[in-house]
Amino acid sequence: MKAAVIMGSDSDLPVLKPALETLQEFGIETEVVIASAHRTPHKVHEFAATAEKRGVKVIIAAAGAAAHLPGVVASFTTLPVIGVPVNSTSLGGLDALLSIVQMPSGIPVATMAINGAKNAAIFAAQIIATGNAALAAKLADYRQKLAAEVEQRAARAQEKLQAN
Amino acid sequence: MKAAVIMGSDSDLPVLKPALETLQEFGIETEVVIASAHRTPHKVHEFAATAEKRGVKVIIAAAGAAAHLPGVVASFTTLPVIGVPVNSTSLGGLDALLSIVQMPSGIPVATMAINGAKNAAIFAAQIIATGNAALAAKLADYRQKLAAEVEQRAARAQEKLQAN
Amino acid sequence: MKAAVIMGSDSDLPVLKPALETLQEFGIETEVVIASAHRTPHKVHEFAATAEKRGVKVIIAAAGAAAHLPGVVASFTTLPVIGVPVNSTSLGGLDALLSIVQMPSGIPVATMAINGAKNAAIFAAQIIATGNAALAAKLADYRQKLAAEVEQRAARAQEKLQAN
Amino acid sequence: MKAAVIMGSDSDLPVLKPALETLQEFGIETEVVIASAHRTPHKVHEFAATAEKRGVKVIIAAAGAAAHLPGVVASFTTLPVIGVPVNSTSLGGLDALLSIVQMPSGIPVATMAINGAKNAAIFAAQIIATGNAALAAKLADYRQKLAAEVEQRAARAQEKLQAN
Amino acid sequence: MKAAVIMGSDSDLPVLKPALETLQEFGIETEVVIASAHRTPHKVHEFAATAEKRGVKVIIAAAGAAAHLPGVVASFTTLPVIGVPVNSTSLGGLDALLSIVQMPSGIPVATMAINGAKNAAIFAAQIIATGNAALAAKLADYRQKLAAEVEQRAARAQEKLQAN
Amino acid sequence: MKAAVIMGSDSDLPVLKPALETLQEFGIETEVVIASAHRTPHKVHEFAATAEKRGVKVIIAAAGAAAHLPGVVASFTTLPVIGVPVNSTSLGGLDALLSIVQMPSGIPVATMAINGAKNAAIFAAQIIATGNAALAAKLADYRQKLAAEVEQRAARAQEKLQAN
Amino acid sequence: MKAAVIMGSDSDLPVLKPALETLQEFGIETEVVIASAHRTPHKVHEFAATAEKRGVKVIIAAAGAAAHLPGVVASFTTLPVIGVPVNSTSLGGLDALLSIVQMPSGIPVATMAINGAKNAAIFAAQIIATGNAALAAKLADYRQKLAAEVEQRAARAQEKLQAN
Amino acid sequence: MKAAVIMGSDSDLPVLKPALETLQEFGIETEVVIASAHRTPHKVHEFAATAEKRGVKVIIAAAGAAAHLPGVVASFTTLPVIGVPVNSTSLGGLDALLSIVQMPSGIPVATMAINGAKNAAIFAAQIIATGNAALAAKLADYRQKLAAEVEQRAARAQEKLQAN
Repeated sequence: MKAAVIMGSDSDLPVLKPALETLQEFGIETEVVIASAHRTPHKVHEFAATAEKRGVKVIIAAAGAAAHLPGVVASFTTLPVIGVPVNSTSLGGLDALLSIVQMPSGIPVATMAINGAKNAAIFAAQIIATGNAALAAKLADYRQKLAAEVEQRAARAQEKLQAN
Repeated sequence: MKAAVIMGSDSDLPVLKPALETLQEFGIETEVVIASAHRTPHKVHEFAATAEKRGVKVIIAAAGAAAHLPGVVASFTTLPVIGVPVNSTSLGGLDALLSIVQMPSGIPVATMAINGAKNAAIFAAQIIATGNAALAAKLADYRQKLAAEVEQRAARAQEKLQAN
Repeated sequence: MKAAVIMGSDSDLPVLKPALETLQEFGIETEVVIASAHRTPHKVHEFAATAEKRGVKVIIAAAGAAAHLPGVVASFTTLPVIGVPVNSTSLGGLDALLSIVQMPSGIPVATMAINGAKNAAIFAAQIIATGNAALAAKLADYRQKLAAEVEQRAARAQEKLQAN
Repeated sequence: MKAAVIMGSDSDLPVLKPALETLQEFGIETEVVIASAHRTPHKVHEFAATAEKRGVKVIIAAAGAAAHLPGVVASFTTLPVIGVPVNSTSLGGLDALLSIVQMPSGIPVATMAINGAKNAAIFAAQIIATGNAALAAKLADYRQKLAAEVEQRAARAQEKLQAN
Repeated sequence: MKAAVIMGSDSDLPVLKPALETLQEFGIETEVVIASAHRTPHKVHEFAATAEKRGVKVIIAAAGAAAHLPGVVASFTTLPVIGVPVNSTSLGGLDALLSIVQMPSGIPVATMAINGAKNAAIFAAQIIATGNAALAAKLADYRQKLAAEVEQRAARAQEKLQAN
Repeated sequence: MKAAVIMGSDSDLPVLKPALETLQEFGIETEVVIASAHRTPHKVHEFAATAEKRGVKVIIAAAGAAAHLPGVVASFTTLPVIGVPVNSTSLGGLDALLSIVQMPSGIPVATMAINGAKNAAIFAAQIIATGNAALAAKLADYRQKLAAEVEQRAARAQEKLQAN
Repeated sequence: MKAAVIMGSDSDLPVLKPALETLQEFGIETEVVIASAHRTPHKVHEFAATAEKRGVKVIIAAAGAAAHLPGVVASFTTLPVIGVPVNSTSLGGLDALLSIVQMPSGIPVATMAINGAKNAAIFAAQIIATGNAALAAKLADYRQKLAAEVEQRAARAQEKLQAN
Repeated sequence: MKAAVIMGSDSDLPVLKPALETLQEFGIETEVVIASAHRTPHKVHEFAATAEKRGVKVIIAAAGAAAHLPGVVASFTTLPVIGVPVNSTSLGGLDALLSIVQMPSGIPVATMAINGAKNAAIFAAQIIATGNAALAAKLADYRQKLAAEVEQRAARAQEKLQAN
């Protein structure tokens, strides 16, 4: 029950922070790797090809611009790869989104929303939970907490509205 | 080890055929459901809320235009949901892609390429394989077959090129 | 003569404020609900399915990103649903616009401009006014006030221009 | 209980046919007008300014390219105007969609999907039904027919799938 | 030798200022009108239909969002109408650009760059200059000044570069 | 009273035919030139720089893809240049539109709709008509013919609709 | 003086044919390789890492959809890599274009137009010609042939136009 | 072994600074020219037509908006031209990108990412290095430095992560 998070540059860390926190919240051991598909391709290759042996069950890969990292990782492993397009250029992340989601037949990358790192972590948990009842229960709880949070914020907002 | 495939309309079947064939190729039991997020929402709700109890491990949901089906399914289950944007309008599938991939924080949908149904099936297999060594081995074989296929087609193309 | 305004999160309130003020200005009783299509789907379902019985004549639903709320509401009622795409991502609201406007045949959502909450309220008033002569008269007055306002601002601008 | 349908050119008729048929199906009297916002602006003005007096309750306006017709109609009446962007250029209807939906504050146009004429008719019926219980009942029936249709097509598709 | 500049709102004035200054620089008498295609359509109609009689030779019309003003003006006159798309929404002016440039056959609007008001004034001068040799000479001078300005700025930049 | 029409390739001729016919219809003498901004730049330069001396009053320039021809022509003359973006790539003419309309400050190109060659001719006539009362009268007639044509087509369509 | 052309699939061959023909026309020895960045990554790696030793001076890499091939090749060599986005999805090649052109700092890919394979070959020749005077002369001739061709086609078109 | 860098305006200098620094870092003599394709076309023509004679091996041309400069330069020389789209309008550089990359057959421009000036310099070095072993060695070193830099930043980030 281990996840890996890989990103092309340490400048992507702020975008990925919510993913790291959420994986921790779910009690999922996580290895974090910074390696560039283009500048350190051997390290990416090595990372992806050996992930399964290190006990990794699912990989989150984030990148911006011509975002090749998730696809390159996916080409070296059959573990599930979750891609997070990072908004890092003047095109609002559309370049990263298309570079990640439009993968050719045979090598899927499960794409999240632009900057959607938190959802990548939740989805990683959902994958691991398919074989882990305790984690599945945590996810059900998490979902209820989400709902409760919406309810509480709604209640507060209603109060304010009625006070006006 | 069961997958579910849901689509909003029988007109999406041709796009989803490669997914059904690929799941069969991997020996994954599959239930197929046609139900519309907007026209038969109760059926979708029922389908999603009870999927886990029926033994479903992963759900593939396909839709075009304002493609809400994958997100609506995801809102009723914590199973992994894989979304396939279908190219069914004059916008080339961009509407479906954005409607599926840009999910808000808390409820992820793992998005594939526009009309990328085959990859949805492969990704479903990758998820199930995280807890199933036999399927993981099949996926490794499949990946090698893909490579071999590219090689063979490359060889034939080379012959033709040299014959010219 | 009651309208309902629903939004997915209290963070959408600033965008919807002009709608609430305009409905009040037209003397239209308004219920405000915060409920998420994805995080609290049962509440959305309940809200939409019972709106007609509560005397609601028209519903305004606002959402950003993969904006499913208006369509989901529309799937549980035959009351007119007016959708407001909220600009809440790096794509400038284009994702929300397409997610709301491209509804499939059978379940319409009347879509306003990105962040166009005020127009949603005016359109709600126009709907109610089709069966309410007093409100229709108010709308005619409102239109004249709009024109007068443009004229006054134009006059002030002309003065400034001539002063230069 | 009368609707009006206006389009800029007789070449838009095929796109609008489903709207005319649906209005007829709901028993809504309909006047059809062909008038161009740019080539016959006086006729459009006349049409819109007098619609209310002719007993029209709601107007459907369709146009392609720089689609000004719905907005121009809306500027001469406070009746609800439903806009249908027509896909008539090489931009897939995106030009018409933005020209209709992005109306400035004060003058709303309720925008449907690109080529979404049928939904325009259903929405017109929903508006009229806010003051007409018989029509409201018809809409509820229509919704159930839609669901039944999806179910039947789903059943047929399931049979075919199992036969394979 | 008179030009008219029309805009939908006084909030467009800052964008149009360079146009007014440039027309003045060319010694072209200019009337400035603020009138909204949607909020004060009669004033727009009146303005456009009588422009020729007032001696106007060319009209500059600026608008943002669903920018109908230039097309509406063009529908009431055969004078040349120059459209300036204003960047006033979250779509960066693309909505205004398409709403202005994609005019249907028969009623042209000469479209400038987004916020390209200065060029609108220069183009207005070019139109008037086709029948006014003095103005044509001014335009030739202006072009040379532009070139000289580029040269001077280039020279200064070169100095700085060499100083580094 | 002479116009010039320039295009980058003879493959653009079908798109420009309506422009040539319309100019003829208005009795405007027209020179037609095929010259490429990139392949025969000297010819384009020569054409543009000497157009005024040849009595040309207005230039129509059409191009597709990275459509530089209109801007390049405009850089060598102060005559009004009308640009026609040609839909000649997989991007539906959006590339040509942006390449033509987004001209920098100082050198305007009056841009028409994608493939809007007929409107380019009408606009050329409108420019010449600012100094030619007979042509202005023709344009007024033309506008009325347009309106009559819409009316006739509308009448025929109405008959058909009522016959059904 | 050798070029290499690599593509992800033999289905890209028709798009690349003009490149192969043009390289032959310039007398540039060419190796053609079919290898997929995602399905046969080791072959791509091997190809790119050893290209320089095989005497390759410049590499043309073509791919569609999430087009990673050019960037992946570039990550394993410092030879100039020319990328050709292939139009192979419903997005008209925009996905491939952004996936290729938006490369991060450090690893450039010289991007051509969508399906612009012929230009890739010409650019490859231009690169080699920087160190090869004979090839530079051929390129100058080629440019003149291009101009002559435009002239001839223009002349034929002129004859036809005058005959009408 | 000389490169030339040309830009349309001194306002593009900040975007091009990284290119100038990188060329210097590689020891490549560089001439810098500011000349506008539209405002000083003769200077651009002169610059491009004589570059080869001045010993220039490769040209970097940067421009924003309707970015014609790279294509215009390419039309006057057969030297390799590298285009840098500058983000200078409300469209995020998409206008400049399409204006540069979509060059017609025969006249290629090697396009870099939006604002990708540094990569333009590296690519220029790669071109020159095809005939210069010393520069090729520098490029190999540079690539290793890039990798080392990624590694160092990764190491620092890892430390911080573990400290938390």
